[in-house]
Amino acid sequence: VIAVNEAQTKHLFDNRYGTGQSTIDGLIRATNVLLAGRKLVVAGYGWCGRGVAMRAKGMGAHVIVTEVEPMRALEAVMDGYEVLPMGQAAPEGDVFITATGDKHVLRREHFERMKDGALLANTGHFNVEIDIPALQKLATSVTAARPFVDAYELADGRTLHLLADGRLLNLSAAEGHPASVMDMSFANQALAAEHAVKNADALEPKVYVVPEEIDREIARLKLETMGVAIDRLTDEQARYLASWDEGT
Amino acid sequence: VIAVNEAQTKHLFDNRYGTGQSTIDGLIRATNVLLAGRKLVVAGYGWCGRGVAMRAKGMGAHVIVTEVEPMRALEAVMDGYEVLPMGQAAPEGDVFITATGDKHVLRREHFERMKDGALLANTGHFNVEIDIPALQKLATSVTAARPFVDAYELADGRTLHLLADGRLLNLSAAEGHPASVMDMSFANQALAAEHAVKNADALEPKVYVVPEEIDREIARLKLETMGVAIDRLTDEQARYLASWDEGT
Amino acid sequence: VIAVNEAQTKHLFDNRYGTGQSTIDGLIRATNVLLAGRKLVVAGYGWCGRGVAMRAKGMGAHVIVTEVEPMRALEAVMDGYEVLPMGQAAPEGDVFITATGDKHVLRREHFERMKDGALLANTGHFNVEIDIPALQKLATSVTAARPFVDAYELADGRTLHLLADGRLLNLSAAEGHPASVMDMSFANQALAAEHAVKNADALEPKVYVVPEEIDREIARLKLETMGVAIDRLTDEQARYLASWDEGT
Amino acid sequence: VIAVNEAQTKHLFDNRYGTGQSTIDGLIRATNVLLAGRKLVVAGYGWCGRGVAMRAKGMGAHVIVTEVEPMRALEAVMDGYEVLPMGQAAPEGDVFITATGDKHVLRREHFERMKDGALLANTGHFNVEIDIPALQKLATSVTAARPFVDAYELADGRTLHLLADGRLLNLSAAEGHPASVMDMSFANQALAAEHAVKNADALEPKVYVVPEEIDREIARLKLETMGVAIDRLTDEQARYLASWDEGT
Repeated sequence: VIAVNEAQTKHLFDNRYGTGQSTIDGLIRATNVLLAGRKLVVAGYGWCGRGVAMRAKGMGAHVIVTEVEPMRALEAVMDGYEVLPMGQAAPEGDVFITATGDKHVLRREHFERMKDGALLANTGHFNVEIDIPALQKLATSVTAARPFVDAYELADGRTLHLLADGRLLNLSAAEGHPASVMDMSFANQALAAEHAVKNADALEPKVYVVPEEIDREIARLKLETMGVAIDRLTDEQARYLASWDEGT
Repeated sequence: VIAVNEAQTKHLFDNRYGTGQSTIDGLIRATNVLLAGRKLVVAGYGWCGRGVAMRAKGMGAHVIVTEVEPMRALEAVMDGYEVLPMGQAAPEGDVFITATGDKHVLRREHFERMKDGALLANTGHFNVEIDIPALQKLATSVTAARPFVDAYELADGRTLHLLADGRLLNLSAAEGHPASVMDMSFANQALAAEHAVKNADALEPKVYVVPEEIDREIARLKLETMGVAIDRLTDEQARYLASWDEGT
Repeated sequence: VIAVNEAQTKHLFDNRYGTGQSTIDGLIRATNVLLAGRKLVVAGYGWCGRGVAMRAKGMGAHVIVTEVEPMRALEAVMDGYEVLPMGQAAPEGDVFITATGDKHVLRREHFERMKDGALLANTGHFNVEIDIPALQKLATSVTAARPFVDAYELADGRTLHLLADGRLLNLSAAEGHPASVMDMSFANQALAAEHAVKNADALEPKVYVVPEEIDREIARLKLETMGVAIDRLTDEQARYLASWDEGT
Repeated sequence: VIAVNEAQTKHLFDNRYGTGQSTIDGLIRATNVLLAGRKLVVAGYGWCGRGVAMRAKGMGAHVIVTEVEPMRALEAVMDGYEVLPMGQAAPEGDVFITATGDKHVLRREHFERMKDGALLANTGHFNVEIDIPALQKLATSVTAARPFVDAYELADGRTLHLLADGRLLNLSAAEGHPASVMDMSFANQALAAEHAVKNADALEPKVYVVPEEIDREIARLKLETMGVAIDRLTDEQARYLASWDEGT
């Protein structure tokens, strides 16, 4: 088995630039909401969360990030985002997007504090990131407000909007990743398969990472198709990097 | 006549934040192209052009601006954009968006230098910003590649894609401005009409601008609906602003 | 009198890009504080305030804006900043920069709520934007922490740092505007003086704005010195702009 | 030996946010150049180069990145930067900053194509990133233009400015990293030393990485000192992450 999902040309690009753009795309298609000036809460600051945060900021939103890992939380702070526990973000946010891979990131205690009209969406993994059964219990009625938008009216008069049934927003309400990030993901699969076939004798029955030279070759080809040329090390530079003798 | 289009709560918001977001939205819906890493050329750096440039940059594009007015061109430069004449931008761009209000901003001399696969769109005014008849003359065939995308195959083998027949991209391929910018534009119309009725006797038959107090009141109400509170001048501050005696 | 300060090539560039960069420069020289992740409060969203907010955001700060004018406050919101009354911003901010042209924008009621270690600076106008006498009354001691940084120790144990005696931070603690924005301001003065001399007979004793053609010529020359070429209207385009007959 | 330089709380923060800000700081102190609208070339897109690129963009520069690694080059492209080989960037740039750790990144072939007045600086490693001997050979005279700025007049009349003798710009012309990034780097050293003492018996004579729990604890403490609270996994969430049974 070769874990293509862990190749750099996969997760650095697909998860970040792909999910970033396509999640914003799904949000706008589903709701046509103006992002400028909205408070948009991103749960999770992994590659997907970073992509969503970066693009939401680029559309003029005030982005709030929630995290459980101190290292990622600190990066989010230093990247200029407001970082809050979800309990404090809940009454602030206009839009909530989960990107954690975990369960019940938005739950009853949060629904109870949210603003009337808040939008809830998931771009992380399964439809368990938002605790939908808890939302249903709180609701007195559920109506389809627009395609991909269900309005949950709560007993206290507030309405919360669940997008795309809590399924991946970018796949449900938009077209998923653009071709120009999927090309790299697919190239990983194709070249990893070729690698497995060619090296069948030498490989053991275990999980391998994608060989670095495949990853680098994909990046090189991608640049080429984009018409971007880069530098090459001179011989002198390659020697310098390999040596301990030079420099002061 | 009251020129509501010139109210600040109209052109500062609708033309910039509204057109900015909805044009990007239209572009992505029509093409599902990844903006990160693309060279996107914006023709015109008025309020619409600024909005498009700002949001395209926010989506990770490398934005090139073209202008005819030195002042605007200089602002674009200082805002960090590359500024080029269209003749030089033509062979660089992956996407071209006109926002000028003028005619034939993209024309034969530009089509001839563009890259294979370039996308051409208009978000400025009428369908004359792109010289479509000239494009048709150059083409050996025109086929619908996707909804809102016509592929013009040229004699030299390149294909240029015209989006939404050169009509306003955000109205054609997306939903136009979000409600939360149109609310201010409509408030201008409603309050300007009320003003005209109430002051009918005092008004002469000419074109008026929207009274500043209406503009300010709309901004105040908009902030209120967004839950944003702001400061008020203290008496001491108001006196200071009105005086010439204080300060060193 | 010709009001050169109101020329576009003055206030759009000097006040925004000049003050923006040089205020950040003064702040870092005076304190060597890391801006990434700090909450930086900008009082006033005029051209100077915009410049400071834009550059502080660019350095990774979480920027909070305070305003008294609804229109400007709304622009700040839509530009992605958090907008708060100063009373609410006071306990949040790590750094406070006034850019209002008014008096006592930071005053006793705010000092009392600020965090230990907060930095207070002014880049607006005179040294009255921060109510220094009120700060002195609250302080049990004042010591020079670094050049341009006075530490006001308060009775409750907190210390507030006043930068550059509340005088313009960019002029006091840095070198003021870079030459490449002052060149435009000086060009305005020189060309306006020439204009006054040449047209002495036709001018009346009153305040004039800088003639638009001077402003545009300065912008044109500036672009030329930067090596930036721009487009010119074709004859067809100039005719179109001047006509009511074309377009659909 | 414990390689503290490879701890995440070191290189993710010190190299990126620290070097980013302090290099811009050194550049402005040395030259007082306006960054808005300048073409600034960053050689190398490692953590230091990213930091410099990000902050230069935040100050309004048009940033061009050069790289030898396809993967990093591709990230730079998708982050919205122009990516060029140095040979093409040389005649474009107003400012050049090397951040590669390699040798002769700027060399004779580049000096020969640079614009009159270009600024050359290094923020990577030793003073070999810029080939100073080659620059000296090309020069007919060298004069000190300002502190930390040497003007190399070339035979063809152009002048190139070398900043801080090609030594690290942020350490030479500014104050180096702010205290609030060095605190994490020093905490790594202190806690790694403590770890070595406490576990002296179990450690072998080789190079270790900083234990992940030390890294995470430093991040946690840093957030605490900044007053930033984050979420904790609920028991249910921790179970979910550890399980393969749930989700659809």
